[in-house]
Amino acid sequence: MGDFAKGLEGVTAAETNMSFIDGQEGRLEYVGIGIDDLAEHSTFEETVFLLWNNRLPTASELSDFRKELSKRYALPAGLARRVAEIPTTAQPMHMLRTLVSEMSLYDTHPNDNDVEQARRKAMNILGQAPTIVAMFDRCRRGLPVIEPDPSLGFSANFLYMLNGEKPTETMARAFDICMITHADHGLNNSTFAARVVISTLSDVYSAITAAIGSLRGPLHGGANEGVMHMLNEIPSVDDAEAYIMGKLERREKIMGFGHRVYKAKDPRATYLMTLAEQLAKDTGNADLYAKSHKIEQVMEREVAAKGIYPNVDFYSATTYHCIGLRLDLFTPMFAMSRIGGWSGHVIEQLSDNRLFRPAAAYVGPHDAPYVPIDQR
Amino acid sequence: MGDFAKGLEGVTAAETNMSFIDGQEGRLEYVGIGIDDLAEHSTFEETVFLLWNNRLPTASELSDFRKELSKRYALPAGLARRVAEIPTTAQPMHMLRTLVSEMSLYDTHPNDNDVEQARRKAMNILGQAPTIVAMFDRCRRGLPVIEPDPSLGFSANFLYMLNGEKPTETMARAFDICMITHADHGLNNSTFAARVVISTLSDVYSAITAAIGSLRGPLHGGANEGVMHMLNEIPSVDDAEAYIMGKLERREKIMGFGHRVYKAKDPRATYLMTLAEQLAKDTGNADLYAKSHKIEQVMEREVAAKGIYPNVDFYSATTYHCIGLRLDLFTPMFAMSRIGGWSGHVIEQLSDNRLFRPAAAYVGPHDAPYVPIDQR
Repeated sequence: MGDFAKGLEGVTAAETNMSFIDGQEGRLEYVGIGIDDLAEHSTFEETVFLLWNNRLPTASELSDFRKELSKRYALPAGLARRVAEIPTTAQPMHMLRTLVSEMSLYDTHPNDNDVEQARRKAMNILGQAPTIVAMFDRCRRGLPVIEPDPSLGFSANFLYMLNGEKPTETMARAFDICMITHADHGLNNSTFAARVVISTLSDVYSAITAAIGSLRGPLHGGANEGVMHMLNEIPSVDDAEAYIMGKLERREKIMGFGHRVYKAKDPRATYLMTLAEQLAKDTGNADLYAKSHKIEQVMEREVAAKGIYPNVDFYSATTYHCIGLRLDLFTPMFAMSRIGGWSGHVIEQLSDNRLFRPAAAYVGPHDAPYVPIDQR
Repeated sequence: MGDFAKGLEGVTAAETNMSFIDGQEGRLEYVGIGIDDLAEHSTFEETVFLLWNNRLPTASELSDFRKELSKRYALPAGLARRVAEIPTTAQPMHMLRTLVSEMSLYDTHPNDNDVEQARRKAMNILGQAPTIVAMFDRCRRGLPVIEPDPSLGFSANFLYMLNGEKPTETMARAFDICMITHADHGLNNSTFAARVVISTLSDVYSAITAAIGSLRGPLHGGANEGVMHMLNEIPSVDDAEAYIMGKLERREKIMGFGHRVYKAKDPRATYLMTLAEQLAKDTGNADLYAKSHKIEQVMEREVAAKGIYPNVDFYSATTYHCIGLRLDLFTPMFAMSRIGGWSGHVIEQLSDNRLFRPAAAYVGPHDAPYVPIDQR
């Protein structure tokens, strides 16, 4: 390899007003406010307003924002028909990427990129993505579709559409905290992909579609499903230590640990750990939490010195499982939340755009002849 | 703005064996072979083989490649039904992005990323994209769908499916040359987007979907449609000079001129100019070519000293128009060709992957309090 920054590690590629990460200290702020404060006091809607406007809303602004969003829970009829026709074997992330792309076909001005229009499109995607996921999941389970309830907040409405009954307040709040903690995280790969795509002045649908495609990779959002697979492979808490030690000896990756940016415990993991512990107890999944916690202890002893700590995926897996989500919906949950962050970055990029067009180092031959086919 | 490389200009983001651009000299090579040589002697299928394998094929390898590709012209029944159901008002690039994303739902192993499987997926997309575009265009015109003819090459088959009659050899060859010249071009925005997305180890469908979304932007592939709009705005060749001078005085962008990389005439523009001239004469569009040529002369006199020259979009607009393509199919043509380049880059990235995860410069506040809503 040459001496360029592979993977653009350490290269600054954009400015942002949205989130700040101190990887050494393990601190994450959205517009200056610590993620712990937001997880404790805010709601997902308020957090998205914060990211899109770089300040917290007043009470009436928040009420308007919620109304704008809940008006969009219902899908256009054509799109709803399409969700019902998706093959039931489809993987949810491929389905979601396809349907978000398809939303552009129901927008009479899909390419308008002024801030007002870009926000309108972002609001469409933010409002409709949960409906698409819930509808698809019920269709593939052979259950009747539940229409959204605009009187409910983002998180409660999603759980209601998914399960057919209104969630308890504790459950809706736990889910909302997951949404808050996943909403933005600097120039992670999917956010960067969204900014790269919008920089051709394409459109919000193209940018968010690209981001969903990025997020589904196992090196990014797909990791939370990997954590759950790992937890399922460990029969009980007593087997956790041997399982992890075996993996470490074979130099296999432990899902949910390590992060390009954090060299301390991911502050989202800290918060989600507390949440997961409580939820696991409440839902009869104490053993699952115990397994997770044991894994963290073993990893702390073995590799914390190398800066490898639990990341956001590690405890979100237990949390989503306790909420009752099927495994292949974990990454779509990440997407539903991150649409907030992606959209904010798209709006930032549009407001001071420069086409992303890096250079490649060409390492092939030069001045090669075109040899006619009968002489090859 | 800070002092980072905005738009990653001048930053080397990847290595490639595929294409080499000398922007000062106006030279473009694919795997060392000059674009002129390829445009004159090669075919699109051979060029894609070259890009994917870093060498020209033997006769039997080329024959196998063509067979593999033409086997894929026909769409799976479910996908074909979907194309027929797309709203006829849909813009073709949004349609194509959605349908390529949807192809993943008909792949039983959409996430397999070993080289063999990635090539198989790339071949699916390369083979089916033209069928999707032609079917959609005929459906929206209320014409019966023409099934693909696997005995025809990539370009001839596409024109056949689009028009319902086999193209002349000259026409098929002209189209094939457009496909060859658009197939790859270093780390352009859409190619970069594809590499960013695949670097999470997501999948070929996600990566190509992202690239299509990028390409549709007016700062990228969408520019060839802009050129045609401009040509349509100029009543005749006699009006061209005044039109361009007026735009220059108002400091408006002239579509089809200037390029981040080239400070000389784009070698693809040189080749396409000759092709456009001949085609325009053959198809009764001599006036259109004359307008283009006049614009180039005025621009040469006025701004060539600033390094602003015609780019690939400038003469491809006239070429596509002479071939009889509707305006909003120009960018999808670019996409059909560039799928070859995108796929090659995706395979390169997978063979030596490192997650793209640049840094952002955070320019917002720090340590902000969460102010309760009734105190805002």
